Amino acid sequence: MSFELIKTCAQTGARLGRVHTPHGSFDTPMFMPVGTQATVKGMSPEELTAVGARIILSNTYHLAMRPGEDVVREAGGLHRFMHWDGPILTDSGGFQVFSLKDIRDIREDGVAFRSHIDGSRQFFTPERATDIQNALGADIIMAFDECAPFPSEYEYVRESTDRTTRWAQRCKERHESAGDPGRQSLFGIVQGGVYEDLRERSAEALCRIGFPGYAIGGLSVGEPAADMYRILEHVAPILPADKPRYLMGVGSPDYLIEGVLRGIDLFDCVLPTRMARNGTVMTSRGRVIIRDQKYARDDGPIDAACGCYTCRNFSRAYIRHLIKAGEILGVRLTTIHNLYFLLDLMKRIRQAIIEDDLGGFRERFYAGFRADEGEGGGGGPQKRIW
Amino acid sequence: MSFELIKTCAQTGARLGRVHTPHGSFDTPMFMPVGTQATVKGMSPEELTAVGARIILSNTYHLAMRPGEDVVREAGGLHRFMHWDGPILTDSGGFQVFSLKDIRDIREDGVAFRSHIDGSRQFFTPERATDIQNALGADIIMAFDECAPFPSEYEYVRESTDRTTRWAQRCKERHESAGDPGRQSLFGIVQGGVYEDLRERSAEALCRIGFPGYAIGGLSVGEPAADMYRILEHVAPILPADKPRYLMGVGSPDYLIEGVLRGIDLFDCVLPTRMARNGTVMTSRGRVIIRDQKYARDDGPIDAACGCYTCRNFSRAYIRHLIKAGEILGVRLTTIHNLYFLLDLMKRIRQAIIEDDLGGFRERFYAGFRADEGEGGGGGPQKRIW
Repeated sequence: MSFELIKTCAQTGARLGRVHTPHGSFDTPMFMPVGTQATVKGMSPEELTAVGARIILSNTYHLAMRPGEDVVREAGGLHRFMHWDGPILTDSGGFQVFSLKDIRDIREDGVAFRSHIDGSRQFFTPERATDIQNALGADIIMAFDECAPFPSEYEYVRESTDRTTRWAQRCKERHESAGDPGRQSLFGIVQGGVYEDLRERSAEALCRIGFPGYAIGGLSVGEPAADMYRILEHVAPILPADKPRYLMGVGSPDYLIEGVLRGIDLFDCVLPTRMARNGTVMTSRGRVIIRDQKYARDDGPIDAACGCYTCRNFSRAYIRHLIKAGEILGVRLTTIHNLYFLLDLMKRIRQAIIEDDLGGFRERFYAGFRADEGEGGGGGPQKRIW
Repeated sequence: MSFELIKTCAQTGARLGRVHTPHGSFDTPMFMPVGTQATVKGMSPEELTAVGARIILSNTYHLAMRPGEDVVREAGGLHRFMHWDGPILTDSGGFQVFSLKDIRDIREDGVAFRSHIDGSRQFFTPERATDIQNALGADIIMAFDECAPFPSEYEYVRESTDRTTRWAQRCKERHESAGDPGRQSLFGIVQGGVYEDLRERSAEALCRIGFPGYAIGGLSVGEPAADMYRILEHVAPILPADKPRYLMGVGSPDYLIEGVLRGIDLFDCVLPTRMARNGTVMTSRGRVIIRDQKYARDDGPIDAACGCYTCRNFSRAYIRHLIKAGEILGVRLTTIHNLYFLLDLMKRIRQAIIEDDLGGFRERFYAGFRADEGEGGGGGPQKRIW
């Protein structure tokens, strides 16, 4: 993988870039749809391409538990297994493992837990997380980290962050000795919670180890938006300008815009696909809960301003009927729309950077929410709109 | 709607025909995928076209209960509501209403029952079933009938069948006075259980009333295959040769072949889509339960002889993983395959009729099952293979 910084928005400092991988190139800022179990829920690979997805994320923990990384490796790797020939990023499994309710005995060596599939005892180390990702074969892989919950005491976050740094070193060593660094690029993950000095310490230590890209983890985990923005403003300038920056687990329209404004290049989140399965859609005027009775006879599209397959062909009334009736097509149509909406937003963000007008775009985008149909409410980054 | 009888297989008497409707034409023998709730479960309209579907069936009872036929009518009818511009057939609701476990007080006037959605009291009459179908706007609509269960006593079936005949008369009168017979064609349904004299009496009475097409209902409801074949052989010759014949609720490969051999032109069944959702696929060598552990590392397609989207792009191992993981894409892929398989079977049947060799085709098709992979077992119409 290599990263080209193409230009910086003169107005805001936001970055336009291009990432080259063994499975093709894509422009940044970019949002990555999440395909936890080697499929973006509800979508075919061709539909992903049609909605504008150029890189997807898949989850190391889930694939290791089922079907097992050896099954994927024997199938020729994740790309061939799931029939997606574009770039893939796999997370490290850290976030998932540390989210498990059941036992997670955290040691310097690694973390013990039980599989959510069969309850079997498992032990993930930086080396194992790296080996699994080597077997899966994604273009970008992630260092094994602990994502400290919010809120966490300073002392806990300090210890956890320092361990994550040591784990990142071990991941790099394992990847270089047993993996294929020419084919897969290993990113480090900055942790440190909402504490600026810990974030700084983490970022600087990771930069000393040296990675082809850096993620910022441990945000969008329940902290106020202002904390996230403050940490981004503190961390991004520390990271090298010639490497991509990936803000993990962020996917609401306002967070994407605010992240790009603060120098972020890559994002991922289950939000658009999860919302879609609950029958909620993103529109240029705010969130719409399509299950609502008021849409029962609404002949219009989800969003008149949208060009997606769903909006070109199906009415709110029909989609509401499908969702109420528990029909798969309903979830497919809302998922297609939400992903298209976010990926189109990223495209418009990239265009605004080209035009040195991301600040103006931001104002116009938020202004649209003042005419919101009821859900969500009027916008701006202070009052969350999603 | 009009029906053209194009040719008859010199070897077997099977019929090749063409049905013309306000939404396009299709060749017969044809299988209709079932879209109960205004969607063929898991499929988009474009995917239906791609697997070879040329006419689909939707269910009057389900749509009347949810979203209500007025919602569909206001949306411009079922075609526009569901974005399917090809021919549609709606059933009469009779089969569904008589299948409800809850109360079904059967009177000469109609049948009382409770909605499975909200428990509300409902009363369907021949007139109401016809009105609903007029509102839905399908190209072919069905007379309201009682499908007697198997087994049923002769006396019960006689009374029920005679009532169904009287109901058919009322449906026709209602359709001609309040509907649009030029736009929608009303088919009668022959009942009579496994009793040849009752079937004959039903068919002759319906022919006297006169319909543009005739269905044979009350078969494939649990009776032995031999009974079904015997009834088909008895009824088909009574029906006018210049009108289409529709065997309701039949969709296994062997039943389709045997039905065509006995003069049937149209079929429908939930079998391919329901099997798909359970992770079972139809192949040229028999049924395959794709969830089985033995396919966990199977890199081959579901059916090497199949040209569907699923078989061209995805392995058994991946599809098994998706089904085990409860992923929507798994159901989509098995559904696409099963529908393609059946619709391709119908295409091959039509070709065999053109070549006056349906008997030979039948032999070769069943012979494939002798090399079955384990599920289903060796074939022929006597030993059911599905």
